[in-house]
Amino acid sequence: MAEYVRGEIPGQPVGTTYLNRRDAADKKVHQVTVQGIAGNTEVGAVSIVINGGYVDDEDHGHYVIYTGAGGNDPGTKRQIADQSLTYMSNAALVVSQENGYPIRVLRGAKGDHPDSPTTGLRYDGLFQVTDHWSEPGKDGFLIWRFRLDQIDTQTATTFAPGVDPTAETPPPGVSAPSRTSGVVVRVVRSTAVSDWVKKIHKNTCQICGIRLTLAGGAYSEGAHVRALGAPHNGPDTADNLLCLCPNDHVLFDQGAIYIEDDLTVRSHTGAALGTLTTNTGHSIDVAHLKQHRNRFGFP
Amino acid sequence: MAEYVRGEIPGQPVGTTYLNRRDAADKKVHQVTVQGIAGNTEVGAVSIVINGGYVDDEDHGHYVIYTGAGGNDPGTKRQIADQSLTYMSNAALVVSQENGYPIRVLRGAKGDHPDSPTTGLRYDGLFQVTDHWSEPGKDGFLIWRFRLDQIDTQTATTFAPGVDPTAETPPPGVSAPSRTSGVVVRVVRSTAVSDWVKKIHKNTCQICGIRLTLAGGAYSEGAHVRALGAPHNGPDTADNLLCLCPNDHVLFDQGAIYIEDDLTVRSHTGAALGTLTTNTGHSIDVAHLKQHRNRFGFP
Repeated sequence: MAEYVRGEIPGQPVGTTYLNRRDAADKKVHQVTVQGIAGNTEVGAVSIVINGGYVDDEDHGHYVIYTGAGGNDPGTKRQIADQSLTYMSNAALVVSQENGYPIRVLRGAKGDHPDSPTTGLRYDGLFQVTDHWSEPGKDGFLIWRFRLDQIDTQTATTFAPGVDPTAETPPPGVSAPSRTSGVVVRVVRSTAVSDWVKKIHKNTCQICGIRLTLAGGAYSEGAHVRALGAPHNGPDTADNLLCLCPNDHVLFDQGAIYIEDDLTVRSHTGAALGTLTTNTGHSIDVAHLKQHRNRFGFP
Repeated sequence: MAEYVRGEIPGQPVGTTYLNRRDAADKKVHQVTVQGIAGNTEVGAVSIVINGGYVDDEDHGHYVIYTGAGGNDPGTKRQIADQSLTYMSNAALVVSQENGYPIRVLRGAKGDHPDSPTTGLRYDGLFQVTDHWSEPGKDGFLIWRFRLDQIDTQTATTFAPGVDPTAETPPPGVSAPSRTSGVVVRVVRSTAVSDWVKKIHKNTCQICGIRLTLAGGAYSEGAHVRALGAPHNGPDTADNLLCLCPNDHVLFDQGAIYIEDDLTVRSHTGAALGTLTTNTGHSIDVAHLKQHRNRFGFP
């Protein structure tokens, strides 16, 4: 089995071209010769190839909507069965998202983007999975989709290649990193409707009941049920917002918690965790709860 | 008492100039005529004036290092006593940071930035507090400092002005907000050293012992003790990183929790919360713990 390496490969800068899949594998940029996704659930997905393999792929240049692996006919490229998130390549992409791991993106000559190479393959830099969801594909079968956003070049250099996270002594790290190379950047923004939702719940988490207190007062986060922006296009309205603590916000946003129409809160394992705390002045649109469940493959 | 309003004021676009403080107060852009900071601990700081009032102010254009209020001689502008974070204007800036509230920034003719107006005052747009810390000022007394970063124009429009968050019915919100108008944007990035710290602690929070589980596996966050980038300039090295859950990460980053040299974890009220869980392979540099305490005014 290939020993998968994340991040930049020494000697293979952005823009390097490869004759074919074998050449890219020899240079360790994409260490498998057939699959579009290289990696496993331990290291995450380390590289992907965009080369017209899936009819549902969308290549927007700086971001890509990539179709998960499986369920397609390699000859016709059409989907002939539902995809599964437990399929290793897809699960590897989820691991990459949850841990913020970088993924090498290669474009091939069969890709749809105008900037695709004319022959062979080209390494186009490091991307990061920022979203995943399921939906019916163009051929009617369930597919998993992953949004990958390009990591800006300056930040990309902080992803040290080839370091073993299981080592007993820590990697050396960086003594003077930039402000933007933070591990988790949490940008809090206020909107009128999120302020209102947090106030009416007194900054108390609707899932676990915790109320964090900072020096300036109680702290909570407005969590959108149907996510904002493409492709989910949720509204920034009170019936699409929950008042959550950061822990439950992460769990909910990543689909590790979902909420049924009767407001039962369940873990992704199916275990009931309790009932969403509600306030008579604030109701949630169950259509948004259903969209959130379906997005992560729950009924 | 003035009824403070956050966000853009209708009819007062970015670049509007004012004859003097009285004029700016009449137009409700800066609703106080003497103090540099307008606001309170309920609505946060709604506006500030940068006009050479404090010797420690730094105006970098798109971001500002602003000195808190108090402790200075209005005649000489020099500090003559320590500042306090419980002083209302300073506490208001903390509330703004914790809630992501927008702050109107006005520049006056006495400011140091080359782009300051030649006379009177000018409204220069919405900023957001992204950091605060204490340190000795140029005159030797303790000052509180606040970093304010300009909010990009597109995002700024999502801050609806003048909405009352205590209203019983929710504000209308926005039915088609952009992806970037999110309330909390959490960008997770992996670095070799954060991967290692999270692995050695098995993604278990060193403060509370919780271990969150997502679909792809356990989730934790690498939290820097001494923050990265200016002005704290912490290193991205294992001895400056904790493995925390998102809740404790927020509390720690905002100074609501601090850690003593003997690894006792305390709330900002001084209450002991327990002892930091350690791993024999991973030690924390106590100098970083001390910098974090001092940054938030703890001994």
